[in-house]
Amino acid sequence: MAAAGAAAGGTSHPSLAPPPPLALTMGDPAGIGLEIALRAWAARIERGLAPFVMFGDAEALTQRARHLGIDARIKVVADARSAAPIFHEALPVINMALASPANPGLPDARNGPATIASIEAATAAVALGQARALVTNPIAKSVLYEAGFAHPGHTEFLGALAERFEPGRRFAPVMLLASDELKVVPLTIHIALAAVPSAINKPLIFETVHTLWQALRRDFGIAAPRIAIAGLNPHAGESGSIGLEERDIIAPAIEALKAEGLTVTGPHPADTLFHASARKTYDAVLAMYHDQALIPIKTLAFDRGVNVTLGLPFVRTSPDHGTAFDIAGQGIANPESLIQALLLAADMASKRALNSTQFKTRRIS
Amino acid sequence: MAAAGAAAGGTSHPSLAPPPPLALTMGDPAGIGLEIALRAWAARIERGLAPFVMFGDAEALTQRARHLGIDARIKVVADARSAAPIFHEALPVINMALASPANPGLPDARNGPATIASIEAATAAVALGQARALVTNPIAKSVLYEAGFAHPGHTEFLGALAERFEPGRRFAPVMLLASDELKVVPLTIHIALAAVPSAINKPLIFETVHTLWQALRRDFGIAAPRIAIAGLNPHAGESGSIGLEERDIIAPAIEALKAEGLTVTGPHPADTLFHASARKTYDAVLAMYHDQALIPIKTLAFDRGVNVTLGLPFVRTSPDHGTAFDIAGQGIANPESLIQALLLAADMASKRALNSTQFKTRRIS
Repeated sequence: MAAAGAAAGGTSHPSLAPPPPLALTMGDPAGIGLEIALRAWAARIERGLAPFVMFGDAEALTQRARHLGIDARIKVVADARSAAPIFHEALPVINMALASPANPGLPDARNGPATIASIEAATAAVALGQARALVTNPIAKSVLYEAGFAHPGHTEFLGALAERFEPGRRFAPVMLLASDELKVVPLTIHIALAAVPSAINKPLIFETVHTLWQALRRDFGIAAPRIAIAGLNPHAGESGSIGLEERDIIAPAIEALKAEGLTVTGPHPADTLFHASARKTYDAVLAMYHDQALIPIKTLAFDRGVNVTLGLPFVRTSPDHGTAFDIAGQGIANPESLIQALLLAADMASKRALNSTQFKTRRIS
Repeated sequence: MAAAGAAAGGTSHPSLAPPPPLALTMGDPAGIGLEIALRAWAARIERGLAPFVMFGDAEALTQRARHLGIDARIKVVADARSAAPIFHEALPVINMALASPANPGLPDARNGPATIASIEAATAAVALGQARALVTNPIAKSVLYEAGFAHPGHTEFLGALAERFEPGRRFAPVMLLASDELKVVPLTIHIALAAVPSAINKPLIFETVHTLWQALRRDFGIAAPRIAIAGLNPHAGESGSIGLEERDIIAPAIEALKAEGLTVTGPHPADTLFHASARKTYDAVLAMYHDQALIPIKTLAFDRGVNVTLGLPFVRTSPDHGTAFDIAGQGIANPESLIQALLLAADMASKRALNSTQFKTRRIS
């Protein structure tokens, strides 16, 4: 993607051009997205952040910075390629005007279209190689539904957008939660606990592990990934005496993955899978459901976890929290998860570009 | 209980008599129980352990100590009251002879009766006030079933034993996992995940919270306990859009508990309930199922967690691990969880005795 973008920019020596910026969406303008973006930009030198460009309302950003006393300059740019050179002097913004003033804590459906447009434009910039990875601020689905949003969630929307740019392909996005301590994928996500056992099946495990394995290699630079798979039941079913999903579904899927040569272990009892010495035995965990994945990472790395979407044709990260309407505009929102999302997106995009180049070189030679 | 024991011993000034010892069971003699008991005794001074007496096979303990090179003297005593005075020179043992030599890693159903007898005798000593709290080593149910054991688990067996000493009363034991970082109770325990939603009901929540609240006051000395209750579904059901158990069962139970004057909050999304700053807002958590409770405590305090049984007429703790047949006899078993179980049992028994005395004094004056 990065190489394609440089080519689109007409640079004859892509390696000498500055890398494209990261594309950051606005998120719900009544949430903490504007505030944490301003704080992240203000911390750009101290935290070593790669340039990013925000797709959002420049006026709302300027006002929010003034209101909160954040020392941040805003500069409207015409396109993503103009962003990197000015990033150290100002936060570059591709202007997406809101229909109604942004009131912190008071979401307004009239601003839904601009929120959606920000996601569409940022995704297009990444898909076209003008930006090198997508970082999204939190949205509130209920607000967007009033504006006609027709997707189950943010991630599914990105999958649909990606398909616009690669017609005929189908993307099955996979959610990864990542921190320095742990990488974990929930096999099932926002469904009731009662629906989890029947949602688990061998093809889903198979496809999810394949997506995870490819991402660990390409985007995290792990040459021989080790994936640990949790059981569903207490003690991973205790040989079938506390539930049969391990015996009938999870263990056979693991055997099939091993037969392909993948380093996959389990089904492991989930309770003993996340302490420090257990974490040394794998690179990532596949958990069976939302809380089995999110309890350990939020217990270990609250405020530092990053939500990564695997299985898209571009790198996408986001902070691991919501719009936080209850604290928006008060100056107390913690930008750490967004900063981690920006750092990780830059790192993953670099590794992906490097690995793509290596693959190409190998293919040619 | 402690006071009753001293009275049974004929001491006219119970406060001047040494407190009774803790009663420690043998557990499965092919597991790590003997080894960690010896290591705990060897660490008695360094770790400040209160006297304990082991109900087990003295010969097997002596051989295990010799085999592993643990510097431990074993001394057979006639009853629990003789144990405390000699504890600093030798590990006091009430002898329960095995039918067959104990082979580490090779459980033997012929030793099931002695394993069961150890639990019965230790429980009797505590119930009669000769010991002040019960600490149990791990057993393997499958081995005991071959010896005719007819209870679903260790804890249910203790409940049945307790009823022998208080005929007509029914005990509903509640499992609490405790460490310095966290106290958490799973509402449901060793059942398949698919069976969890239908096992959750308002009377069970009500009764469990009552037992927990009483224990936090009496055994942990927390005058005004704050209990946080987790939801069942992702995001605690997100206002009913991801499951209805919060709306229909958990929230009404919380309202009823609040109406009684208890400080109970929730239903909380489980993923954000266990990080350091969340843990400052409560004294204990009620989780809905096994892994929701055990993932956070084992992630935070692996090797240091203690399993506590509330709702019995005596204090009972145990290490938070199994028999570990795979590493038994190799000298690598970590005694830390047993040491924590001994420390916590002594502390809880002291607080319970103190609070019982206070209650009595208040009632008299």
